[in-house]
Amino acid sequence: MRISELSAETGVPVATIKYYLREKLLPEGERTSATQAVYGPAHVERLRLIRALVDSGVGIAASRQVIAALDDPPANPNHLLGMAHAAVSPPALDDLDLSAAEALISRWGWNPDACGPQQLAGVARALDTLDRAGFTVPEATMDAYLAGIRRMVDAEIDAIPTTSTDAAVRYVVLGTVLVEPLLLALRRVAEEFVSGDRYGDAVS
Amino acid sequence: MRISELSAETGVPVATIKYYLREKLLPEGERTSATQAVYGPAHVERLRLIRALVDSGVGIAASRQVIAALDDPPANPNHLLGMAHAAVSPPALDDLDLSAAEALISRWGWNPDACGPQQLAGVARALDTLDRAGFTVPEATMDAYLAGIRRMVDAEIDAIPTTSTDAAVRYVVLGTVLVEPLLLALRRVAEEFVSGDRYGDAVS
Repeated sequence: MRISELSAETGVPVATIKYYLREKLLPEGERTSATQAVYGPAHVERLRLIRALVDSGVGIAASRQVIAALDDPPANPNHLLGMAHAAVSPPALDDLDLSAAEALISRWGWNPDACGPQQLAGVARALDTLDRAGFTVPEATMDAYLAGIRRMVDAEIDAIPTTSTDAAVRYVVLGTVLVEPLLLALRRVAEEFVSGDRYGDAVS
Repeated sequence: MRISELSAETGVPVATIKYYLREKLLPEGERTSATQAVYGPAHVERLRLIRALVDSGVGIAASRQVIAALDDPPANPNHLLGMAHAAVSPPALDDLDLSAAEALISRWGWNPDACGPQQLAGVARALDTLDRAGFTVPEATMDAYLAGIRRMVDAEIDAIPTTSTDAAVRYVVLGTVLVEPLLLALRRVAEEFVSGDRYGDAVS
């Protein structure tokens, strides 16, 4: 199909498709003349993935890394996961105090030294933000966070597809990034219902 | 203290403090002359809260709503929670298909009609993003998400402080917004460790 048809098929404007082509997020079509190229189903699928990443707030640079992983994936799901995480996580900063994050991870029984530096920094940054706001997560709540997350993640890792590397990469990349808004949205819904059950509607 | 001292105490530049004053995020200091005002501990605390909100990606308009809630809080924690959620959640859009979100919430045993429209829309939007990316969360994983989130939220709502309305507002607002990055960061850490435990380091 031509670029105009690719645009109609995916709902992505032609100018945006050209931008993704220039940015090497989308592979070139097959040239049929000096000014025309044709595109196939793989371009449709790739465009949907790019839109999903961009709509989820993943920047162009991180999207390019994720897509490079799809084009040249490592064979081990654990390496896939580390790579996907590295692509979509901000860099670790040198001046972060990691001790609180390390202590928290240790409560899971894992050795925090074995944690990817960006992920450890992510926890440290989140704890630092809470700390600067003067907000302390109560111990019992933190225990519930650790237990609840462990339960979710066990199921996620169980479900990494082993049928093909392509399927595994897609699952890990999209499962990491795109599921985050769902988890946050479900948490807010659950907060409203549990709060409603607990406190009812009476204004004291 | 003067504005320069308030800046030194909080690490927030004077120009930024003046911006927050203009934006009504920070209340005026007590005027001592036509050009000078003095600030107290409440300003320090408020500035730390503003920075925490802004650092968490809450915009100025939403921060203003959250802060208005701190200045004039409703008495019922359930109403506080709904208000905090409304302030920090994007508006519900009319053209979203809510059926998949409603079906998901029903699996918790709650009536989706009783859900705040913005929160229901948040779930619908997240499911729509996954759908457009062609990503299906496996049933067993979704069950684990619902169970894990329920466990976390039960503990959160248990811990809403009842000592003062101010404390309750602070807890609900900060607990909703500022805890989100922590949960996402902890999830990524857990994914790396569970994946490492499951697949080890061998490249196949």
